[in-house]
Amino acid sequence: MSEYHPLTLEEAIALARTIPDLFPEDARLSCREIGDGNLNLVFHITDPASGKSVILKQALPYAKVVGESWPLTLDRARIESEALQLQSSFCPDLVPRVYKYVPELAVTAMEDLSDHIIMRKGLIARNTYPKFAGHIGRFLARTLFLTSDLGMNQQEKKLLMKRFVNPELCKITEDLIFDHPYTDADTNNFDEAIRDEAEALWRDGDLHREVARLRHGFLTHAQALLHGDLHTGSIFVTADSTKVIDPEFAFYGPIGFDIGAVIANLLLNYAAQEGWSPTADSRARYRAYLLDTIRKLWTVFETEFRALWNERSVDRISNAPGFQDEYIGNILADTTGYAGCKMIRRIVGLAHVADIDTIPDAAAKEKAQRTALAIGKALIRRHRDVRSIDQLIEIAERSGQGG
Amino acid sequence: MSEYHPLTLEEAIALARTIPDLFPEDARLSCREIGDGNLNLVFHITDPASGKSVILKQALPYAKVVGESWPLTLDRARIESEALQLQSSFCPDLVPRVYKYVPELAVTAMEDLSDHIIMRKGLIARNTYPKFAGHIGRFLARTLFLTSDLGMNQQEKKLLMKRFVNPELCKITEDLIFDHPYTDADTNNFDEAIRDEAEALWRDGDLHREVARLRHGFLTHAQALLHGDLHTGSIFVTADSTKVIDPEFAFYGPIGFDIGAVIANLLLNYAAQEGWSPTADSRARYRAYLLDTIRKLWTVFETEFRALWNERSVDRISNAPGFQDEYIGNILADTTGYAGCKMIRRIVGLAHVADIDTIPDAAAKEKAQRTALAIGKALIRRHRDVRSIDQLIEIAERSGQGG
Repeated sequence: MSEYHPLTLEEAIALARTIPDLFPEDARLSCREIGDGNLNLVFHITDPASGKSVILKQALPYAKVVGESWPLTLDRARIESEALQLQSSFCPDLVPRVYKYVPELAVTAMEDLSDHIIMRKGLIARNTYPKFAGHIGRFLARTLFLTSDLGMNQQEKKLLMKRFVNPELCKITEDLIFDHPYTDADTNNFDEAIRDEAEALWRDGDLHREVARLRHGFLTHAQALLHGDLHTGSIFVTADSTKVIDPEFAFYGPIGFDIGAVIANLLLNYAAQEGWSPTADSRARYRAYLLDTIRKLWTVFETEFRALWNERSVDRISNAPGFQDEYIGNILADTTGYAGCKMIRRIVGLAHVADIDTIPDAAAKEKAQRTALAIGKALIRRHRDVRSIDQLIEIAERSGQGG
Repeated sequence: MSEYHPLTLEEAIALARTIPDLFPEDARLSCREIGDGNLNLVFHITDPASGKSVILKQALPYAKVVGESWPLTLDRARIESEALQLQSSFCPDLVPRVYKYVPELAVTAMEDLSDHIIMRKGLIARNTYPKFAGHIGRFLARTLFLTSDLGMNQQEKKLLMKRFVNPELCKITEDLIFDHPYTDADTNNFDEAIRDEAEALWRDGDLHREVARLRHGFLTHAQALLHGDLHTGSIFVTADSTKVIDPEFAFYGPIGFDIGAVIANLLLNYAAQEGWSPTADSRARYRAYLLDTIRKLWTVFETEFRALWNERSVDRISNAPGFQDEYIGNILADTTGYAGCKMIRRIVGLAHVADIDTIPDAAAKEKAQRTALAIGKALIRRHRDVRSIDQLIEIAERSGQGG
């Protein structure tokens, strides 16, 4: 089993048995492959007798997205397992536990989260998650501060950055988020109903300048170890629990990229309420919940990040008066801009979100798409001027009303 | 000879003989060690008969600066030889040719530049180098553009960055430039005559905030492969030739750091004219030459960087209207701030410059030190507002007059 090959169900079971202290020795394990087959195999292995279970995630040597397929490094399995273990050392309750990593097979054995659901599905079902904002705000503050030059030994940080150089997965982001939506690229994918919007994006030089700035931040600003793909499909939730999964895009980048990703996906669902809320009243209520979640997650992030800074900073001169405020202000501006980029690519770029794509009514779907683009563009255009989370929310609300 | 040890003269000769096509087979080589023994051994090997010669530079496993000594990685010899070869591919006439690199001995065999002098010595002798500005402007534009996300494949750039992760040498800069001068650190080293200036630096919170911003740029902004230590002691000159040497501090950092280093060292010599110019007239003339060199080197840098961008950019969306101007404007602001930091550390920090330290007259030396600090502080304080090279020069001139 030592050379790379996609595992069979039997091999997955055999591998699961090698995890110490998980299954009883004589357990009769059953196994299902539950991945979507686009990037990874995902084996769910259970022991009905003891009720114990495990997930084996195996990277495939290619990626398939919306019919396209290209080769993709297996090294992403190492990056994912190392990122999960590092995140676990900072917030053990907010990521799945890793039991084992087998480099030659690109397999990570990790905690089974079948009692959770993917947050995107929960939001489409219009559930509310009152603990989510606090959890994700803490996840962001701790994972980002404690891998930055503020929170860890600055020479060790350079070596950590080296381990997380991730060219192939960064290239996907650079192309699909920071380039293709702004030109007539083959990978773009949008409904003909909004062709006018797509073509306007391709011609908008002022918007391109702001996107170029954000793109160069992504390319050059090695501020902290990011999750790198923190959308609501990478988060498992229950009423009481939040688990961040799939950090295979992890690399050293700008802090605002991760925060912006979460906010963008909440705002995509906000836009999608055109299609899901049964009444104007219920739409307003759910949207208020989403905006409140954004306000709260930023506030928790900022509060915890500042507390870590005040208690655990390793960077003497960063305590200069006013520098912390300026640093946080720059994170908020980045957050705003990256949130905008992440919204736009989900409407006109290659990969969409189910929140909007599965809206049954065509007119409502189109309206949701236009709302998302209006918010996305406004966030990008105005990101450098945003001084508070309320201002970000106000931009989203106003531009979402066509205002 | 395969395990690391400091070479003897005989071993250096034996190694020099292994360089293909350099010396005649029967050459009677002679060898002198001409290094200062602080960081490296430098062997000068000559064949009087053929007139051919070579330099072998061997890294020592420690650094000595002003009496202090600490262990230092031999990997810097690899970084130096790889950086020289890369720079040579961009501007073959502006760096010494590398003949050979022997990793296990941390030895680089390179072109002998004995017909050149160290630029710092030339400036102290009040020579002028009319070709220097054009040469160094081109060196900066080409080495920085062609290793940035604008000028090379962006995935290969990430792998190149990984090869140049350089924690130990970056740490020296982080401590000695961006921390110690601003606190009562043991490493600081200044004349008692200017203790008032040093103590004012330690208390100046507004200045610390600006230095913190520049420090974080140095820590996180992986914009291009820098030389990393581009002072006038790292440059060999003749009337017609410029050669940049010693890139052992090379790493991916902010473009303005290299440009600022050159400008800082020209401005340190500008300040030093208090002690070297025989008359007020000659002082004004030499200072005008130095400021003109700064103006010209920036102008050549900007012109060549823009030309490369317009002709060879690999980054589609960076052609958005206005983005190039903004990018260059940010480089100029960084250049200004880093120039200021580099001046201050040479007056109150561990390592000084001969331009000022060797001024014979104590009063003139003190005045030169105060002038350098005034210019350095003004450049740091105002770096974000600088919009043109003339503005940078005006800040230097005015603050240098106590204005």
